[in-house]
Amino acid sequence: MPAYFSLFLFPFQILTIFVFHSIKSMSEKPLILVTNDDGIHAKGLRELVDVMQFFGDVIVISSEVSMSGKACGITVDQPLRATPVEEIHGVPTYKCNGTPVDSVKLSFNNLLDKTPDYVVSGINHGANTSISVIYSGTMGAAIEGSLHGVPSIGFSLDDFGPDADFSKAKLIVARIFQSVIENGIPEFSCLNVNIPTGKPKGIKICRQAHGKWVEEFEKRTDPHGREYHWLAGYFKNFEEDSVETDLHALKNNFASVVPVSVDMTCYKTLDHLKKWEL
Amino acid sequence: MPAYFSLFLFPFQILTIFVFHSIKSMSEKPLILVTNDDGIHAKGLRELVDVMQFFGDVIVISSEVSMSGKACGITVDQPLRATPVEEIHGVPTYKCNGTPVDSVKLSFNNLLDKTPDYVVSGINHGANTSISVIYSGTMGAAIEGSLHGVPSIGFSLDDFGPDADFSKAKLIVARIFQSVIENGIPEFSCLNVNIPTGKPKGIKICRQAHGKWVEEFEKRTDPHGREYHWLAGYFKNFEEDSVETDLHALKNNFASVVPVSVDMTCYKTLDHLKKWEL
Repeated sequence: MPAYFSLFLFPFQILTIFVFHSIKSMSEKPLILVTNDDGIHAKGLRELVDVMQFFGDVIVISSEVSMSGKACGITVDQPLRATPVEEIHGVPTYKCNGTPVDSVKLSFNNLLDKTPDYVVSGINHGANTSISVIYSGTMGAAIEGSLHGVPSIGFSLDDFGPDADFSKAKLIVARIFQSVIENGIPEFSCLNVNIPTGKPKGIKICRQAHGKWVEEFEKRTDPHGREYHWLAGYFKNFEEDSVETDLHALKNNFASVVPVSVDMTCYKTLDHLKKWEL
Repeated sequence: MPAYFSLFLFPFQILTIFVFHSIKSMSEKPLILVTNDDGIHAKGLRELVDVMQFFGDVIVISSEVSMSGKACGITVDQPLRATPVEEIHGVPTYKCNGTPVDSVKLSFNNLLDKTPDYVVSGINHGANTSISVIYSGTMGAAIEGSLHGVPSIGFSLDDFGPDADFSKAKLIVARIFQSVIENGIPEFSCLNVNIPTGKPKGIKICRQAHGKWVEEFEKRTDPHGREYHWLAGYFKNFEEDSVETDLHALKNNFASVVPVSVDMTCYKTLDHLKKWEL
C-alpha cells in the first residue's frame, strides 16, 4: 500500500489522500474481473492488476497467447477451458483458451461465485482509438462486461512495445476507475480509455474519431512459390481538426474517454431508409 | 436468366419486369464482392451468388472453415492467403485463411483490380438480430465493406440448418439489393438484413432490439479428468413489445433491415460523462 501512496502523490494532485481514505472506508471490497487481449504474460495486464488491487478483490483471466484483433469474437466450434495458473501479484489467475469475450462469458457463468462489480480490460499495448474499437479484443471484453450489466472499461496505452512504460498510465487508470466507482456508467455502455505515452496533460471526454485503417498488405512468396500477405498499413484520420475526438485528445497528450454503445443502430440512416418503398 | 424471371414473378409483385429491364439497361455491370462467415461450402453463400449474378459481375471470397462468431476480428499474427478454388456458379472464387474481415480487406487491397461497387455477406445460416450484430462474422464483413466506402449488406436467414430453404429469402435479398442500387446507403453505415423462414409478409425498417445472450455453458469432463465448457444458451429480448425492433419484425414473419453504424460512441452517455470532474 505505501507504494501506491507515493505513486498517487507524485504527479497528480487529482488523486489524493482522499481517494486512499474513501477506498479504505468501503464496507466491502468490490470484486474486479481483470482481463486483456495481449495474453497472460503481457506487462500491461500485470500493471492493471497492480492498480486494481488498490480498489478491490481482483481475479484475472486471460489467454495463453495474444488475442489482439479478435474484436467481439466468440468460440462456438471448440470447448473452452479456464485453467488456474501462477498468480499475478498474488491474486487468483486463470488462463482461458478462448477470446477475450469468451473469457468474460466463462468467468461470469462458470468461474466466479458471484457477479463481479467491475470488468476492466488492458492495459493494452497500443491505442484503440477511433474505429479500432471494432477490431479490438480489449474492447470486446469491456463490451461483453457491459452486456452483463456491469460497469466495464477498456484501457489502452499508445505504445505497442512489450516493455512499454505504464507508470504514468496507471495514474490515469486509477483516476478514471475512481470516477466510475463514484458515478457509475449508464447501463449497456462501457468506456474506451486511451492513454498517451509520457506524462499526460489530463483526461478528456471524447467521441470516437471518424477514420479508418488503410491497409497495405505486404505481398511475399514462400519457399514453395506460393503467395502470402501480411496485414499492415497506417491509420487515416478523416477529421484532424475535430477537437472533441479521441484521436485529437491523444495527439495532444490527453487521455481520452469514449463511451461505447452496444446499440449499433445508425439512427441517422434509419430516417433515410424509412423513405424507401419496400 | 429465365429462372430468375419466373422466380421474381411468382410471389412478390414488388419485384417486376421493370427491375429486370432496369438492370439489363445499365451501361456497365456493377462489381459485387460476395462473402460470408459460414465458409466456402455453405449453401447460403451459393444462394447469394445466385441472386447477385442477376445484378452484376460477381467475385467470391470466403474461408475453408466456418468463421461464425468471428465478429470484426482480424488476423495480425499470421500471413493471409487467397487461393483460387472451384468456381461457384461460374464466377471467380477464392478461399481465404482469415476471418470475414480479412477476406474483405485482402480483396480490396490485393485481389481485385478495381474497388467493388457492393459488398454482400451471407446468406447466413441463422439470424443475426439484436446484439448478435457485434458477434457476427457475416456483419463483420459488411461493416468492413462500409468502412471502405462501399454500400454493404449482411443477409441472414433465421434457420441454422445446413440445408435451410433459401428460396423465399432470395426474393427478399433481391428486393433489398435493388433498393440499395436505387437509393444507396449513407456512407459509413451498412445494412443488417434478417429474413424469417417460410414466406415473409414483407420488409420492415427497424432498429436493433435491446437484448442479450444468456449463456449456459455446459460443463463436461474429458477422458483425462479435465473440465471443459461448451458455449450454449438462449436469447433474452428485453423489449418484447417494441414493434420497431428487428426481433419483433422477425417474430412476426417480416424481414428486418437495420442500418448499422461504425461509430460506436454512446452519445447519451457522453452527456453523462461530461459532468464528471476529471
